[in-house]
Amino acid sequence: MGESKLFSAGRALSIAEVPQWDVVTDVAVVGFGAAGSCAAIEARYAGAQVDIFEVASAAGGSASLSGGEVYVGGGGGTSVQREHGFVDETEDLYRYLLMSGGPAADQERVRLYADHAASHFEWLGAQGVPFKGTYLPGKWIEPTTDDTLIWSGNEKAWPFSEHAKPAPRGHTVEFKGWGGGKLFMEKLSERAIQLGATAHYETRAICLITDQHGAVKGVLVRKAGEYLYVQANKGVILCAGGFITNRAMVERYAPQAMVCEQFVTGGNDDGAGIRMGISVGATTLNMHEFFATLPFFPPESLIKGIFINERGQRFINEDTYHGRVAHYVLRQPNGRVWLLVDNEIFGRPLIQQDITIAAVGETWEEVEAELGLEKGALVDTVATFNRYAAEGQDPYFHKDKEWLRPLLTPPFAALSYCQGDIEGHAFTLGGLATKPTGQVLNADGQSIPGLYAAGRTACGLPRWGEGYSSGMSLGDSTFFGRQAGRHAALESED
Amino acid sequence: MGESKLFSAGRALSIAEVPQWDVVTDVAVVGFGAAGSCAAIEARYAGAQVDIFEVASAAGGSASLSGGEVYVGGGGGTSVQREHGFVDETEDLYRYLLMSGGPAADQERVRLYADHAASHFEWLGAQGVPFKGTYLPGKWIEPTTDDTLIWSGNEKAWPFSEHAKPAPRGHTVEFKGWGGGKLFMEKLSERAIQLGATAHYETRAICLITDQHGAVKGVLVRKAGEYLYVQANKGVILCAGGFITNRAMVERYAPQAMVCEQFVTGGNDDGAGIRMGISVGATTLNMHEFFATLPFFPPESLIKGIFINERGQRFINEDTYHGRVAHYVLRQPNGRVWLLVDNEIFGRPLIQQDITIAAVGETWEEVEAELGLEKGALVDTVATFNRYAAEGQDPYFHKDKEWLRPLLTPPFAALSYCQGDIEGHAFTLGGLATKPTGQVLNADGQSIPGLYAAGRTACGLPRWGEGYSSGMSLGDSTFFGRQAGRHAALESED
Repeated sequence: MGESKLFSAGRALSIAEVPQWDVVTDVAVVGFGAAGSCAAIEARYAGAQVDIFEVASAAGGSASLSGGEVYVGGGGGTSVQREHGFVDETEDLYRYLLMSGGPAADQERVRLYADHAASHFEWLGAQGVPFKGTYLPGKWIEPTTDDTLIWSGNEKAWPFSEHAKPAPRGHTVEFKGWGGGKLFMEKLSERAIQLGATAHYETRAICLITDQHGAVKGVLVRKAGEYLYVQANKGVILCAGGFITNRAMVERYAPQAMVCEQFVTGGNDDGAGIRMGISVGATTLNMHEFFATLPFFPPESLIKGIFINERGQRFINEDTYHGRVAHYVLRQPNGRVWLLVDNEIFGRPLIQQDITIAAVGETWEEVEAELGLEKGALVDTVATFNRYAAEGQDPYFHKDKEWLRPLLTPPFAALSYCQGDIEGHAFTLGGLATKPTGQVLNADGQSIPGLYAAGRTACGLPRWGEGYSSGMSLGDSTFFGRQAGRHAALESED
Repeated sequence: MGESKLFSAGRALSIAEVPQWDVVTDVAVVGFGAAGSCAAIEARYAGAQVDIFEVASAAGGSASLSGGEVYVGGGGGTSVQREHGFVDETEDLYRYLLMSGGPAADQERVRLYADHAASHFEWLGAQGVPFKGTYLPGKWIEPTTDDTLIWSGNEKAWPFSEHAKPAPRGHTVEFKGWGGGKLFMEKLSERAIQLGATAHYETRAICLITDQHGAVKGVLVRKAGEYLYVQANKGVILCAGGFITNRAMVERYAPQAMVCEQFVTGGNDDGAGIRMGISVGATTLNMHEFFATLPFFPPESLIKGIFINERGQRFINEDTYHGRVAHYVLRQPNGRVWLLVDNEIFGRPLIQQDITIAAVGETWEEVEAELGLEKGALVDTVATFNRYAAEGQDPYFHKDKEWLRPLLTPPFAALSYCQGDIEGHAFTLGGLATKPTGQVLNADGQSIPGLYAAGRTACGLPRWGEGYSSGMSLGDSTFFGRQAGRHAALESED
């Protein structure tokens, strides 16, 4: 941040300074990832001319590196949920999503999504994204089979389970191995091109262009060293991702994410879309929030362990979504946390096999001493946990019966989830304030003419690290990308 | 939020739409509170023409309702610190303030403040703010005597005490009773007027005026129903407070502050300054952060009690600053928290005398049962606390010896600090990103020509609810108001 440049995302260009229009279109889409693809598809369906500007050499964005999973349900259930006997009422999805949005949840956005998520799933299939239609039971970070339906969030975990009837809602593209997002994105981007959108690759959006009333009229891009002035008669849609790769922005806006050294990104989440929005008077929301994960399972058996902090206190039900666990872990005093396991449930975490084993003992007293905790701190916590677990209860943290058993079989061990020992994976959740239509809002809550945003450039459905579920970001990006594309295309020229 | 208006803070006006300049000045200051007064004073010292626009009928802003206390020290100690035998090195103040700023602390700002805080105190005196020069020992929310020097933050509390040598740094205006801020502000605003600043009361700033390059050239104000176009040749300084009275903004940006029903405000912290900044491309920082307080003492004896949550867990050293306690209390599960006391330390909290006493018993077992907690949850925690406290230790939470004694004298009681039973007092800490000079920054970290901000309109020194100390906001507003006034005045006309 800081160097003075001729043009920069943070400063919009006045239309008076535009020498000529090099590209004239109806809808200019910045970023050809999940949101950009779906925005382009819908804008084309609505008959608008669409030009997409993508900084990479190919479509896909960060969605390409995801698991290719969308979080959908409601309406009694998607076709896949119903086929496997899961009823999923819209109100349950609504309540779950509202709770997942945390203190700053957006009711209007959640309502629109809950009402239409099941049909959105059908729409994705109609665009060519393949779903096998099968159900995979168990608790997964991301399925490596080509099955469709999985439990991908906090549905069955307290306190979510008390407020919304659980159903599996992760719907994953038909793909074997890790990273089905690549196939998912190939299908959507191909569809946009088939429908007649023009893609400009290796083309970086530099800054927005506004008229004297502050309306967005186009965007300046750079392609092969040349600046091109793009006029967008119906609007510019910013689908340029979040800002996890821009360390200066992370440090400023989401400093707590700095401990996460691994980023979930295709490499171009540099915040340019957000900065362009800010330059024309947009307001931002939840810029401090981020997704983080601590993939402490599989193996599933580790969920039967208990997390303690340096005071020997438990702090979370371990059967919640791994991203929620991560946020609780990150805020424990001095960043010191261990997962306590006994010999029966022990296994090396699949995703971090070299996890540090901080202590091993034939008794919990030995483990406690080896960790250097106060006498009794760990031992009392384990004794209390064991006593209740033997009765199938967890009155303090409400871990589900499925994962409750006393930790009785020596040797006992403490796996270190202390800061420095863990691999945190993160992406940002804050972004431009928008209406569900994608219209970008100023600080008075009024829309800025000609400007739309979707995907992680906007503050969307997923906006609270503690409430995230796998599939929410892709579900949000595709669904609200569509809204933005349709609304921009239907704007009349002025 | 939302209604369409001819003019609004969220949308800047183009200079092309200005029919005439009704007021022409060098520096336009928006808001005549602590920051605005000091900005005006320094701008006048630098020879600039200054016009101040204040929506209220008199100067003072929210600072008028404060305790009239500034958080200063360093340089070996202010004159008052030295006189009472306290050495306060700049590096200790620096480390303390950096830690107080939390994860998003601004090193450059903290450095400037730490280096000059002691001389800033002398400056305030030179402007006419009276300080008696006496020291008041003990732990106070706000002194009701007219003494000067108090312990006003987390200096002696863990973990702060481990990182910076403690010193009392609250310096309070000479005033008997609550609310010395009124006198403090009378002196500063009188000084600004004496020096030749022109104050326009009952005059609301409506929106900023920019040229086609995005530079701020003036501000539109409304006075007695008339719109006045104000040209500011050297700059506009936004000192219009925070946004705690704007419930729509609080809900959007700092939803966790919604539980606090009492606001620390003069009534005009409606976020207009922040919204005006956003309208011209400024970026904001820490918009989710807020000051909250839970004045659970005096009487001081209550600090010897222990807070527990519904799991019977302690979660904080009770001798930390009351604002830090408040943030920890607010995030306990289900908002359920009690302060456990025995008969020897019990007293009704001075500021919330009608506190709910949720349980009383001759034994801790009775209190536990009456609160409906799991058997042993509270009793074990008290037993552990008592055992260590008898030895003068608190290995888990590090409460200082001064406040450690076992809770042994029946009857025992639990004071309810559950949500709904408590009076939370709040103001916002997020605001416009600025340089220490007050220059407002865009999303690329570049300054926006002609625009400055200070006080709670900016994200300043106090930016983390958990780290706040009394006197930080007034210290910050006066010190950085001065920087903004000086820098704006020294800008050359273009």
